[in-house]
Amino acid sequence: MRFIRKIIPSHPKEDATFYRELKTILGFSPVDLTYYKKAFVHRSVKYVDAKGNPQNYERLEFLGDAMLGAVIASYLFKKVPSGNEGYLTQMRSKIVSREHLNELGRDLNLIKFVSSNVAKSKFGENINGNIFEALIGAIYLDRGYLFCKKFIRKRVIKPYVDIPKLEGKITSYKSLFIEWCQKEKKDFLFDIYDDTGNDTVRHFSVKLSLEGKIIAKGRATSKKKAEEIAAKRAYYAFQKEISQNQ
Amino acid sequence: MRFIRKIIPSHPKEDATFYRELKTILGFSPVDLTYYKKAFVHRSVKYVDAKGNPQNYERLEFLGDAMLGAVIASYLFKKVPSGNEGYLTQMRSKIVSREHLNELGRDLNLIKFVSSNVAKSKFGENINGNIFEALIGAIYLDRGYLFCKKFIRKRVIKPYVDIPKLEGKITSYKSLFIEWCQKEKKDFLFDIYDDTGNDTVRHFSVKLSLEGKIIAKGRATSKKKAEEIAAKRAYYAFQKEISQNQ
Repeated sequence: MRFIRKIIPSHPKEDATFYRELKTILGFSPVDLTYYKKAFVHRSVKYVDAKGNPQNYERLEFLGDAMLGAVIASYLFKKVPSGNEGYLTQMRSKIVSREHLNELGRDLNLIKFVSSNVAKSKFGENINGNIFEALIGAIYLDRGYLFCKKFIRKRVIKPYVDIPKLEGKITSYKSLFIEWCQKEKKDFLFDIYDDTGNDTVRHFSVKLSLEGKIIAKGRATSKKKAEEIAAKRAYYAFQKEISQNQ
Repeated sequence: MRFIRKIIPSHPKEDATFYRELKTILGFSPVDLTYYKKAFVHRSVKYVDAKGNPQNYERLEFLGDAMLGAVIASYLFKKVPSGNEGYLTQMRSKIVSREHLNELGRDLNLIKFVSSNVAKSKFGENINGNIFEALIGAIYLDRGYLFCKKFIRKRVIKPYVDIPKLEGKITSYKSLFIEWCQKEKKDFLFDIYDDTGNDTVRHFSVKLSLEGKIIAKGRATSKKKAEEIAAKRAYYAFQKEISQNQ
Protein backbone atom coordinates (compact mmCIF):
# COMPACT_ATOMS: atom_id res chain seq x y z
CA MET A 1 0.00 0.00 0.00
CA ARG A 2 1.33 3.40 -0.97
CA PHE A 3 0.73 6.30 1.36
CA ILE A 4 0.42 9.89 0.25
CA ARG A 5 3.31 11.31 2.24
CA LYS A 6 2.78 14.96 2.83
CA ILE A 7 4.45 16.51 5.81
CA ILE A 8 2.97 19.77 7.10
CA PRO A 9 5.11 22.37 5.29
CA SER A 10 7.38 24.87 6.98
CA HIS A 11 8.07 28.30 5.49
CA PRO A 12 10.26 30.60 7.62
CA LYS A 13 8.42 33.80 6.70
CA GLU A 14 4.89 32.44 7.16
CA ASP A 15 6.01 30.68 10.35
CA ALA A 16 7.22 33.98 11.80
CA THR A 17 3.79 35.56 11.21
CA PHE A 18 2.00 32.50 12.59
CA TYR A 19 4.26 32.50 15.66
CA ARG A 20 3.60 36.20 16.32
CA GLU A 21 -0.17 35.95 15.93
CA LEU A 22 -0.35 32.74 17.93
CA LYS A 23 1.65 34.25 20.78
CA THR A 24 -0.92 37.07 21.06
CA ILE A 25 -3.78 34.57 21.19
CA LEU A 26 -2.06 32.27 23.69
CA GLY A 27 -0.65 34.93 25.97
CA PHE A 28 2.69 33.03 26.10
CA SER A 29 5.30 31.75 23.65
CA PRO A 30 4.64 28.54 21.76
CA VAL A 31 7.72 26.28 21.62
CA ASP A 32 7.04 23.72 18.89
CA LEU A 33 4.88 25.18 16.11
CA THR A 34 4.22 21.74 14.58
CA TYR A 35 1.57 20.97 17.19
CA TYR A 36 -0.27 24.22 16.55
CA LYS A 37 -0.13 23.82 12.79
CA LYS A 38 -1.90 20.47 13.13
CA ALA A 39 -4.64 22.13 15.15
CA PHE A 40 -5.61 24.07 12.03
CA VAL A 41 -5.42 21.34 9.38
CA HIS A 42 -8.83 20.29 8.07
CA ARG A 43 -9.24 16.60 7.17
CA SER A 44 -9.81 17.55 3.51
CA VAL A 45 -6.10 18.41 3.23
CA LYS A 46 -5.19 14.73 3.74
CA TYR A 47 -1.82 15.25 5.38
CA VAL A 48 -0.33 12.02 6.67
CA ASP A 49 2.84 11.40 8.66
CA ALA A 50 5.65 8.99 7.62
CA LYS A 51 3.63 6.07 9.03
CA GLY A 52 0.47 7.04 7.16
CA ASN A 53 -1.37 8.43 10.20
CA PRO A 54 -3.73 11.28 9.28
CA GLN A 55 -2.54 14.67 10.52
CA ASN A 56 -5.50 16.94 11.12
CA TYR A 57 -7.21 18.68 14.03
CA GLU A 58 -9.66 15.92 14.93
CA ARG A 59 -7.46 13.96 17.34
CA LEU A 60 -6.25 17.19 18.96
CA GLU A 61 -9.88 18.21 19.42
CA PHE A 62 -10.46 15.03 21.49
CA LEU A 63 -7.42 15.86 23.64
CA GLY A 64 -8.33 19.54 24.05
CA ASP A 65 -11.90 18.70 25.02
CA ALA A 66 -10.60 16.47 27.85
CA MET A 67 -8.19 19.17 29.10
CA LEU A 68 -10.89 21.83 28.95
CA GLY A 69 -13.23 19.59 30.96
CA ALA A 70 -10.56 19.04 33.62
CA VAL A 71 -9.58 22.71 33.93
CA ILE A 72 -13.19 23.89 34.16
CA ALA A 73 -13.96 21.16 36.71
CA SER A 74 -11.08 22.29 38.89
CA TYR A 75 -12.07 25.97 38.50
CA LEU A 76 -15.70 25.32 39.50
CA PHE A 77 -14.70 23.02 42.36
CA LYS A 78 -12.66 25.80 43.95
CA LYS A 79 -14.89 28.72 42.95
CA VAL A 80 -18.18 27.30 44.25
CA PRO A 81 -17.49 25.36 47.48
CA SER A 82 -21.21 25.12 48.16
CA GLY A 83 -22.06 23.46 44.83
CA ASN A 84 -22.79 19.76 44.90
CA GLU A 85 -21.80 17.25 42.21
CA GLY A 86 -24.98 17.83 40.18
CA TYR A 87 -24.54 21.60 40.25
CA LEU A 88 -20.90 21.38 39.19
CA THR A 89 -21.74 19.02 36.31
CA GLN A 90 -24.51 21.31 35.09
CA MET A 91 -22.39 24.48 35.28
CA ARG A 92 -19.57 22.79 33.40
CA SER A 93 -21.94 21.69 30.62
CA LYS A 94 -23.08 25.28 30.20
CA ILE A 95 -19.52 26.59 30.00
CA VAL A 96 -18.30 24.01 27.49
CA SER A 97 -21.49 23.96 25.40
CA ARG A 98 -20.99 23.67 21.63
CA GLU A 99 -22.53 27.10 21.16
CA HIS A 100 -20.21 28.68 23.67
CA LEU A 101 -17.09 27.05 22.23
CA ASN A 102 -18.08 28.21 18.74
CA GLU A 103 -18.36 31.74 20.05
CA LEU A 104 -14.91 31.52 21.67
CA GLY A 105 -13.28 30.25 18.47
CA ARG A 106 -15.09 32.82 16.34
CA ASP A 107 -14.11 35.74 18.55
CA LEU A 108 -10.45 34.77 18.19
CA ASN A 109 -10.96 34.42 14.42
CA LEU A 110 -9.15 31.08 14.53
CA ILE A 111 -10.63 30.10 11.19
CA LYS A 112 -8.19 32.31 9.35
CA PHE A 113 -5.41 29.82 10.23
CA VAL A 114 -7.28 26.82 8.82
CA SER A 115 -5.83 25.08 5.79
CA SER A 116 -8.43 23.17 3.83
CA ASN A 117 -9.24 21.79 0.41
CA VAL A 118 -12.90 22.74 0.68
CA ALA A 119 -14.28 26.28 0.74
CA LYS A 120 -14.34 27.70 4.27
CA SER A 121 -17.89 28.88 3.67
CA LYS A 122 -18.92 25.21 3.60
CA PHE A 123 -17.59 24.41 7.08
CA GLY A 124 -20.63 25.22 9.19
CA GLU A 125 -20.56 26.86 12.59
CA ASN A 126 -19.02 24.03 14.64
CA ILE A 127 -15.58 24.36 13.12
CA ASN A 128 -14.99 27.38 15.36
CA GLY A 129 -15.43 25.37 18.55
CA ASN A 130 -13.63 22.34 17.15
CA ILE A 131 -10.44 24.22 16.34
CA PHE A 132 -10.67 26.08 19.64
CA GLU A 133 -10.55 22.68 21.39
CA ALA A 134 -7.80 21.46 19.06
CA LEU A 135 -5.74 24.51 19.99
CA ILE A 136 -6.04 23.53 23.66
CA GLY A 137 -4.86 20.02 22.70
CA ALA A 138 -1.83 21.52 20.95
CA ILE A 139 -1.03 23.67 24.00
CA TYR A 140 -1.11 20.55 26.17
CA LEU A 141 1.35 18.70 23.93
CA ASP A 142 3.62 21.72 23.57
CA ARG A 143 3.65 23.16 27.10
CA GLY A 144 1.70 20.81 29.40
CA TYR A 145 -1.28 21.05 31.71
CA LEU A 146 -0.36 24.28 33.52
CA PHE A 147 -0.22 26.27 30.27
CA CYS A 148 -3.57 24.81 29.22
CA LYS A 149 -4.93 26.10 32.49
CA LYS A 150 -3.36 29.51 31.90
CA PHE A 151 -4.84 29.75 28.41
CA ILE A 152 -8.30 28.59 29.53
CA ARG A 153 -8.33 31.10 32.39
CA LYS A 154 -7.39 33.90 29.99
CA ARG A 155 -9.64 32.97 27.09
CA VAL A 156 -12.57 31.12 28.62
CA ILE A 157 -12.98 31.83 32.33
CA LYS A 158 -11.97 35.47 32.66
CA PRO A 159 -13.93 36.92 29.73
CA TYR A 160 -16.92 34.56 29.63
CA VAL A 161 -17.59 32.66 32.82
CA ASP A 162 -20.09 34.48 34.98
CA ILE A 163 -21.53 32.24 37.69
CA PRO A 164 -24.70 34.29 38.50
CA LYS A 165 -25.51 34.47 34.78
CA LEU A 166 -24.90 30.76 34.26
CA GLU A 167 -27.09 30.00 37.24
CA GLY A 168 -29.81 32.05 35.59
CA LYS A 169 -29.97 34.42 38.57
CA ILE A 170 -28.97 37.35 36.40
CA THR A 171 -29.91 37.30 32.74
CA SER A 172 -28.68 40.77 31.84
CA TYR A 173 -26.53 43.21 33.76
CA LYS A 174 -27.67 45.93 31.34
CA SER A 175 -31.35 45.56 32.29
CA LEU A 176 -30.47 45.36 35.97
CA PHE A 177 -28.52 48.60 35.68
CA ILE A 178 -31.22 50.38 33.65
CA GLU A 179 -33.97 49.36 36.10
CA TRP A 180 -31.96 50.78 38.96
CA CYS A 181 -31.33 54.08 37.07
CA GLN A 182 -35.01 54.45 36.27
CA LYS A 183 -36.06 53.80 39.81
CA GLU A 184 -33.48 56.21 41.17
CA LYS A 185 -34.27 58.76 38.43
CA LYS A 186 -30.66 58.89 37.28
CA ASP A 187 -29.57 59.72 33.71
CA PHE A 188 -27.43 57.13 31.99
CA LEU A 189 -25.91 56.67 28.55
CA PHE A 190 -24.38 53.71 26.71
CA ASP A 191 -22.06 55.38 24.18
CA ILE A 192 -21.06 52.77 21.59
CA TYR A 193 -18.41 53.14 18.89
CA ASP A 194 -16.44 50.97 16.45
CA ASP A 195 -13.07 50.13 18.04
CA THR A 196 -11.46 47.42 15.91
CA GLY A 197 -7.97 48.94 15.92
CA ASN A 198 -5.34 46.39 14.92
CA ASP A 199 -7.55 43.41 15.74
CA THR A 200 -8.39 40.97 13.00
CA VAL A 201 -12.01 40.77 14.13
CA ARG A 202 -14.34 43.76 14.41
CA HIS A 203 -14.59 45.13 17.96
CA PHE A 204 -16.86 47.61 19.66
CA SER A 205 -16.31 49.75 22.71
CA VAL A 206 -18.81 51.31 25.02
CA LYS A 207 -18.53 54.11 27.56
CA LEU A 208 -21.23 53.98 30.21
CA SER A 209 -22.08 57.30 31.83
CA LEU A 210 -24.14 58.02 34.92
CA GLU A 211 -25.26 61.62 35.45
CA GLY A 212 -22.82 62.72 32.75
CA LYS A 213 -19.80 60.98 34.31
CA ILE A 214 -18.15 57.92 32.75
CA ILE A 215 -18.40 55.11 35.32
CA ALA A 216 -17.45 52.01 33.27
CA LYS A 217 -16.11 50.87 29.90
CA GLY A 218 -16.41 47.69 27.90
CA ARG A 219 -14.92 46.27 24.69
CA ALA A 220 -15.98 43.13 22.81
CA THR A 221 -16.78 41.65 19.42
CA SER A 222 -20.43 42.66 19.50
CA LYS A 223 -22.29 45.78 20.68
CA LYS A 224 -24.42 43.70 23.03
CA LYS A 225 -21.41 42.04 24.65
CA ALA A 226 -19.57 45.35 25.07
CA GLU A 227 -22.65 46.83 26.78
CA GLU A 228 -22.94 43.82 29.09
CA ILE A 229 -19.27 44.11 30.09
CA ALA A 230 -19.65 47.81 30.93
CA ALA A 231 -22.96 47.23 32.73
CA LYS A 232 -21.46 44.36 34.74
CA ARG A 233 -18.54 46.57 35.81
CA ALA A 234 -20.94 49.32 36.79
CA TYR A 235 -23.09 46.75 38.61
CA TYR A 236 -20.21 45.61 40.76
CA ALA A 237 -19.07 49.19 41.38
CA PHE A 238 -22.56 50.20 42.50
CA GLN A 239 -23.57 46.78 43.87
CA LYS A 240 -24.62 48.01 47.27
CA GLU A 241 -27.00 50.64 45.88
CA ILE A 242 -28.32 48.35 43.15
CA SER A 243 -29.02 45.38 45.38
CA GLN A 244 -30.92 47.61 47.81
CA ASN A 245 -33.12 48.40 44.85
CA GLN A 246 -33.96 44.75 44.13
CA MET B 1 -30.07 29.20 60.49
CA ARG B 2 -27.86 27.03 62.66
CA PHE B 3 -25.38 24.73 60.95
CA ILE B 4 -24.15 21.45 62.35
CA ARG B 5 -20.46 22.27 62.56
CA LYS B 6 -18.45 19.11 62.50
CA ILE B 7 -14.92 19.31 61.25
CA ILE B 8 -13.33 16.08 60.01
CA PRO B 9 -11.53 14.86 63.14
CA SER B 10 -7.78 14.44 63.45
CA HIS B 11 -6.23 11.78 65.70
CA PRO B 12 -2.42 11.57 65.59
CA LYS B 13 -2.28 7.79 65.94
CA GLU B 14 -5.00 7.00 63.39
CA ASP B 15 -3.56 9.63 61.06
CA ALA B 16 -0.16 7.93 61.12
CA THR B 17 -1.73 4.62 60.08
CA PHE B 18 -3.83 6.34 57.38
CA TYR B 19 -0.75 8.17 56.09
CA ARG B 20 1.28 4.97 55.86
CA GLU B 21 -1.42 2.96 54.11
CA LEU B 22 -2.27 5.84 51.78
CA LYS B 23 1.37 6.26 50.78
CA THR B 24 1.50 2.60 49.72
CA ILE B 25 -1.63 3.02 47.60
CA LEU B 26 -0.50 6.31 46.05
CA GLY B 27 3.12 5.39 45.43
CA PHE B 28 4.20 8.80 46.78
CA SER B 29 3.80 10.85 49.97
CA PRO B 30 0.54 12.70 50.56
CA VAL B 31 1.12 16.24 51.90
CA ASP B 32 -2.21 17.40 53.31
CA LEU B 33 -4.24 14.49 54.71
CA THR B 34 -7.42 16.62 54.96
CA TYR B 35 -8.10 16.24 51.23
CA TYR B 36 -7.77 12.46 51.38
CA LYS B 37 -9.94 12.15 54.46
CA LYS B 38 -12.75 13.92 52.61
CA ALA B 39 -12.45 11.42 49.77
CA PHE B 40 -13.64 8.74 52.17
CA VAL B 41 -16.49 10.54 53.91
CA HIS B 42 -19.92 9.23 52.97
CA ARG B 43 -22.74 11.80 52.78
CA SER B 44 -24.55 10.03 55.65
CA VAL B 45 -21.90 11.38 58.05
CA LYS B 46 -23.12 14.95 57.41
CA TYR B 47 -19.84 16.74 58.01
CA VAL B 48 -20.01 20.43 57.14
CA ASP B 49 -17.28 23.07 57.10
CA ALA B 50 -17.44 26.38 59.00
CA LYS B 51 -19.58 27.85 56.22
CA GLY B 52 -22.04 24.97 56.23
CA ASN B 53 -20.75 23.37 53.01
CA PRO B 54 -21.13 19.58 53.03
CA GLN B 55 -17.81 17.75 53.28
CA ASN B 56 -18.06 14.36 51.62
CA TYR B 57 -16.60 12.55 48.64
CA GLU B 58 -19.19 13.57 46.06
CA ARG B 59 -17.61 16.83 44.91
CA LEU B 60 -14.17 15.20 44.85
CA GLU B 61 -15.62 12.44 42.69
CA PHE B 62 -16.64 15.05 40.09
CA LEU B 63 -13.13 16.50 40.13
CA GLY B 64 -11.41 13.11 39.98
CA ASP B 65 -13.59 11.96 37.11
CA ALA B 66 -12.48 15.00 35.07
CA MET B 67 -8.79 14.43 35.85
CA LEU B 68 -9.06 10.73 35.02
CA GLY B 69 -10.69 11.60 31.68
CA ALA B 70 -7.89 14.04 30.84
CA VAL B 71 -5.04 11.70 31.79
CA ILE B 72 -6.52 8.76 29.89
CA ALA B 73 -7.16 11.00 26.85
CA SER B 74 -3.55 12.12 26.83
CA TYR B 75 -2.30 8.54 27.30
CA LEU B 76 -4.40 7.19 24.41
CA PHE B 77 -3.52 10.14 22.16
CA LYS B 78 0.18 9.34 22.49
CA LYS B 79 -0.12 5.55 22.65
CA VAL B 80 -2.27 5.10 19.53
CA PRO B 81 -1.18 7.64 16.88
CA SER B 82 -3.28 5.88 14.27
CA GLY B 83 -6.54 6.10 16.24
CA ASN B 84 -9.04 8.70 15.11
CA GLU B 85 -11.29 10.76 17.38
CA GLY B 86 -14.04 8.13 17.43
CA TYR B 87 -11.60 5.35 18.31
CA LEU B 88 -10.04 7.40 21.12
CA THR B 89 -13.44 8.27 22.57
CA GLN B 90 -14.54 4.64 22.51
CA MET B 91 -11.33 3.32 24.09
CA ARG B 92 -11.54 5.91 26.84
CA SER B 93 -15.14 4.94 27.64
CA LYS B 94 -14.06 1.33 28.04
CA ILE B 95 -11.20 2.24 30.37
CA VAL B 96 -13.25 4.55 32.61
CA SER B 97 -16.38 2.40 32.62
CA ARG B 98 -18.28 2.21 35.91
CA GLU B 99 -17.58 -1.52 36.11
CA HIS B 100 -13.87 -1.02 35.59
CA LEU B 101 -13.62 1.78 38.16
CA ASN B 102 -15.46 -0.36 40.70
CA GLU B 103 -12.93 -3.12 40.13
CA LEU B 104 -10.04 -0.68 40.63
CA GLY B 105 -11.46 0.67 43.89
CA ARG B 106 -12.29 -2.83 45.13
CA ASP B 107 -8.83 -4.21 44.41
CA LEU B 108 -7.29 -1.44 46.51
CA ASN B 109 -9.84 -2.16 49.25
CA LEU B 110 -10.54 1.58 49.52
CA ILE B 111 -13.84 0.90 51.26
CA LYS B 112 -12.05 0.15 54.51
CA PHE B 113 -11.23 3.88 54.82
CA VAL B 114 -14.85 4.99 54.40
CA SER B 115 -16.57 6.63 57.34
CA SER B 116 -20.33 6.35 57.19
CA ASN B 117 -23.46 6.35 59.31
CA VAL B 118 -25.07 3.60 57.28
CA ALA B 119 -23.90 -0.02 57.15
CA LYS B 120 -21.23 -0.55 54.49
CA SER B 121 -23.12 -3.61 53.29
CA LYS B 122 -25.87 -1.25 52.09
CA PHE B 123 -23.60 0.78 49.80
CA GLY B 124 -23.91 -1.17 46.60
CA GLU B 125 -21.10 -1.83 44.16
CA ASN B 126 -20.63 1.71 42.77
CA ILE B 127 -19.11 3.09 45.93
CA ASN B 128 -15.83 1.41 44.99
CA GLY B 129 -15.52 3.39 41.75
CA ASN B 130 -16.86 6.57 43.32
CA ILE B 131 -14.24 6.70 46.05
CA PHE B 132 -11.55 5.71 43.57
CA GLU B 133 -12.44 8.83 41.56
CA ALA B 134 -12.68 10.93 44.73
CA LEU B 135 -9.17 9.78 45.65
CA ILE B 136 -7.93 11.11 42.28
CA GLY B 137 -9.67 14.43 43.05
CA ALA B 138 -7.89 14.58 46.40
CA ILE B 139 -4.54 13.87 44.75
CA TYR B 140 -5.17 16.75 42.34
CA LEU B 141 -5.87 19.20 45.16
CA ASP B 142 -2.95 17.98 47.25
CA ARG B 143 -0.21 17.48 44.64
CA GLY B 144 -1.51 18.71 41.26
CA TYR B 145 -1.99 17.27 37.79
CA LEU B 146 1.38 15.53 37.42
CA PHE B 147 0.84 13.42 40.53
CA CYS B 148 -2.65 12.51 39.30
CA LYS B 149 -1.00 11.31 36.12
CA LYS B 150 1.58 9.35 38.08
CA PHE B 151 -1.09 7.66 40.20
CA ILE B 152 -3.32 6.86 37.20
CA ARG B 153 -0.37 5.37 35.30
CA LYS B 154 0.51 3.18 38.30
CA ARG B 155 -3.00 2.12 39.30
CA VAL B 156 -5.05 2.25 36.09
CA ILE B 157 -2.90 2.15 32.98
CA LYS B 158 -0.05 -0.15 33.93
CA PRO B 159 -2.03 -2.97 35.53
CA TYR B 160 -5.28 -2.77 33.56
CA VAL B 161 -5.04 -1.02 30.22
CA ASP B 162 -4.40 -3.46 27.43
CA ILE B 163 -5.12 -1.97 24.02
CA PRO B 164 -5.47 -5.24 22.03
CA LYS B 165 -7.88 -6.56 24.68
CA LEU B 166 -9.91 -3.34 24.74
CA GLU B 167 -10.09 -3.41 20.96
CA GLY B 168 -11.51 -6.92 21.23
CA LYS B 169 -8.65 -8.33 19.13
CA ILE B 170 -7.51 -10.50 22.02
CA THR B 171 -10.10 -11.69 24.50
CA SER B 172 -7.84 -13.91 26.56
CA TYR B 173 -4.06 -14.25 26.61
CA LYS B 174 -4.49 -17.52 28.47
CA SER B 175 -6.47 -19.15 25.64
CA LEU B 176 -4.06 -17.78 23.06
CA PHE B 177 -1.14 -19.28 24.95
CA ILE B 178 -2.89 -22.64 25.48
CA GLU B 179 -3.86 -22.92 21.80
CA TRP B 180 -0.28 -22.34 20.78
CA CYS B 181 1.01 -24.97 23.28
CA GLN B 182 -1.49 -27.52 22.03
CA LYS B 183 -0.61 -26.93 18.40
CA GLU B 184 3.12 -27.09 19.14
CA LYS B 185 2.62 -30.14 21.42
CA LYS B 186 4.33 -28.38 24.32
CA ASP B 187 3.58 -29.12 28.01
CA PHE B 188 2.48 -26.17 30.11
CA LEU B 189 1.34 -25.60 33.68
CA PHE B 190 -0.40 -22.74 35.48
CA ASP B 191 0.65 -23.22 39.11
CA ILE B 192 -1.62 -21.09 41.32
CA TYR B 193 -1.21 -20.37 45.02
CA ASP B 194 -2.54 -18.02 47.70
CA ASP B 195 -0.10 -15.10 48.04
CA THR B 196 -1.81 -12.45 50.15
CA GLY B 197 1.24 -11.67 52.30
CA ASN B 198 0.84 -8.32 54.07
CA ASP B 199 -1.80 -7.06 51.66
CA THR B 200 -5.19 -6.10 53.02
CA VAL B 201 -6.94 -7.81 50.09
CA ARG B 202 -6.51 -11.47 49.19
CA HIS B 203 -3.98 -12.01 46.37
CA PHE B 204 -3.05 -14.96 44.21
CA SER B 205 0.17 -15.74 42.38
CA VAL B 206 0.75 -17.97 39.43
CA LYS B 207 3.89 -19.53 37.99
CA LEU B 208 3.55 -20.46 34.36
CA SER B 209 5.84 -23.27 33.16
CA LEU B 210 6.60 -24.40 29.65
CA GLU B 211 8.27 -27.80 29.25
CA GLY B 212 8.96 -27.83 32.99
CA LYS B 213 10.67 -24.41 33.01
CA ILE B 214 9.10 -21.32 34.62
CA ILE B 215 8.70 -18.72 31.87
CA ALA B 216 6.39 -16.13 33.50
CA LYS B 217 4.77 -15.11 36.78
CA GLY B 218 1.67 -13.14 37.69
CA ARG B 219 0.07 -11.78 40.88
CA ALA B 220 -3.41 -10.27 41.27
CA THR B 221 -6.58 -10.22 43.35
CA SER B 222 -8.21 -13.11 41.51
CA LYS B 223 -6.92 -16.40 40.11
CA LYS B 224 -8.18 -15.51 36.65
CA LYS B 225 -6.42 -12.15 36.64
CA ALA B 226 -3.15 -13.64 37.89
CA GLU B 227 -3.28 -16.25 35.10
CA GLU B 228 -3.96 -13.57 32.49
CA ILE B 229 -1.01 -11.52 33.68
CA ALA B 230 1.35 -14.50 33.47
CA ALA B 231 -0.07 -15.60 30.11
CA LYS B 232 0.28 -12.05 28.74
CA ARG B 233 3.92 -11.93 29.82
CA ALA B 234 4.56 -15.30 28.24
CA TYR B 235 2.71 -14.14 25.11
CA TYR B 236 4.98 -11.13 24.68
CA ALA B 237 8.09 -13.21 25.44
CA PHE B 238 7.10 -15.79 22.82
CA GLN B 239 5.23 -13.37 20.55
CA LYS B 240 7.11 -14.30 17.38
CA GLU B 241 6.41 -18.02 17.71
CA ILE B 242 2.81 -17.51 18.85
CA SER B 243 1.86 -15.06 16.10
CA GLN B 244 3.26 -17.45 13.45
CA ASN B 245 0.77 -19.94 14.83
CA GLN B 246 -2.25 -17.65 14.37
